[in-house]
Amino acid sequence: MKPIINSELTAFFELVRPAINTTLDQLLPAETTVPSRIHQAMRYSTMDGGKRVRPCLCVAAFGVYRDDWKTVLPVACAIEMIHAYSLIHDDLPAMDDDDFRRGKPSCHKQFDEAIAILAGDGLLTLAFEVLGRTSVFPEDRMLRAISMLAAAAGSASGMVGGQVLDLDFEGAPVTAEQLEAIHRWKTGALIGAAVQIGAYLGGSPEPDLAHVKLFSERIGLLFQVVDDILDATDGSNRDEGKATYPGIYGLEKSRAIAHDVSEEARRAIAPLGEPAGMLLAFCDYLEKRTQ
Amino acid sequence: MKPIINSELTAFFELVRPAINTTLDQLLPAETTVPSRIHQAMRYSTMDGGKRVRPCLCVAAFGVYRDDWKTVLPVACAIEMIHAYSLIHDDLPAMDDDDFRRGKPSCHKQFDEAIAILAGDGLLTLAFEVLGRTSVFPEDRMLRAISMLAAAAGSASGMVGGQVLDLDFEGAPVTAEQLEAIHRWKTGALIGAAVQIGAYLGGSPEPDLAHVKLFSERIGLLFQVVDDILDATDGSNRDEGKATYPGIYGLEKSRAIAHDVSEEARRAIAPLGEPAGMLLAFCDYLEKRTQ
Repeated sequence: MKPIINSELTAFFELVRPAINTTLDQLLPAETTVPSRIHQAMRYSTMDGGKRVRPCLCVAAFGVYRDDWKTVLPVACAIEMIHAYSLIHDDLPAMDDDDFRRGKPSCHKQFDEAIAILAGDGLLTLAFEVLGRTSVFPEDRMLRAISMLAAAAGSASGMVGGQVLDLDFEGAPVTAEQLEAIHRWKTGALIGAAVQIGAYLGGSPEPDLAHVKLFSERIGLLFQVVDDILDATDGSNRDEGKATYPGIYGLEKSRAIAHDVSEEARRAIAPLGEPAGMLLAFCDYLEKRTQ
Repeated sequence: MKPIINSELTAFFELVRPAINTTLDQLLPAETTVPSRIHQAMRYSTMDGGKRVRPCLCVAAFGVYRDDWKTVLPVACAIEMIHAYSLIHDDLPAMDDDDFRRGKPSCHKQFDEAIAILAGDGLLTLAFEVLGRTSVFPEDRMLRAISMLAAAAGSASGMVGGQVLDLDFEGAPVTAEQLEAIHRWKTGALIGAAVQIGAYLGGSPEPDLAHVKLFSERIGLLFQVVDDILDATDGSNRDEGKATYPGIYGLEKSRAIAHDVSEEARRAIAPLGEPAGMLLAFCDYLEKRTQ
């Protein structure tokens, strides 16, 4: 139960992110694989220099229990594929209608709408193919990881449900409770699953699981509050008409909320002791982005 | 190794279809589950009186090896959810742009495009949640079933890839080889997976698996040739501009192809003997629909 990496979170990112990118590159069909247009689109929207927050959290949670962090990379990458699919579908004209994503044309602008819909479908499907093929973990834990991830990505209290809520409330005033529900489902559930699955496949013992779950919920919320604050301060107008924390509470109070949620996350993981150091560092990292 | 049901295929359908519908009803979130619009849409497009060919084939293949066919119902229903999602996305304006499906407004007409995209995403995700939760089969076989199904539904030689090919070739002349490739991926792969997964979870021994695989590929092709013939003779124009068997070969030759493919399917499954009677009956059933 010692930490995989004793240095700072920056060093962790420098080590883990390239490994995630390499694994994604190995798992995604080549651009030349027939039908090539969809595989170009799947790679375009996945190999795009994202921050890899979800797979990094999965690796860090796995690392609380095991040193051989590379073992969990295919699982971490399957989670990133689900994240990438959700961005492609969210950007579609019928949804948020965003022409740009991370400074590049969004998938349906670079290719077309049909390919964007199918590239999202293909990434979601590939994620589960990868999980089904991963044979290095106890099979009962792997099956449970699959159902946890699917529930977190799904329509009833998962990511897809959160996107429906987000569309339902667009342009309408939302209460603080509704805002937290949107965030908890749309963003929090998948981030939470990344943490819980990492710990669970690492062999997290039963008493730890409740602590990990609470931590994962708080860091999922923290991530979205921070994202809202950054969007409000970078002048992108990306969230115009969307329910956000600064929109409801203002910037100053939103930063205070981020701090409180970060503290709750730290307290939740405290019983795991020193091996959870990298997860604590994640709280710092996220909270500091708001300042 | 005796057949689960000794009567005719009609009796099989009368027994199994209601059980499939009941299981789907239990597995799908209630219409009132928040967010209710998406759960209404998921149910609208799944509980719609489809013929349940894929789950019935899964049950029939399982029944070659085991009597307790109800055990495999959640798996069979997960396969039907993936079929239902594919129809929702195929009907979207950016894809085949169909306003009607089985005599009712298609999902995006009854609801809206955003909900239709998300309802498809939700069904695909729920299918894998159900599979991950199904704990009555050996866990290694269940994981393998998950990766088989995901590959059959996927972008590289699976259903999503077949839809891309179909769009790529729309309005252009296709060769017989290209037509078979489209069909093999777009329709054949999922039907094949339904058969193979049913047999595999039923405990199909290694020597049988190659026979089952060949059978599943031929019956998948048979299904699509028959579907093309029915579309060409019912005057629906549903497939206008699409590559079809009657479009390339004419009706008479297409019927002869259906007969040949049906014979190939029967020969493939012959080594399994009497317990595979229901699978043989399926060949009859499909072929007779063309006459």
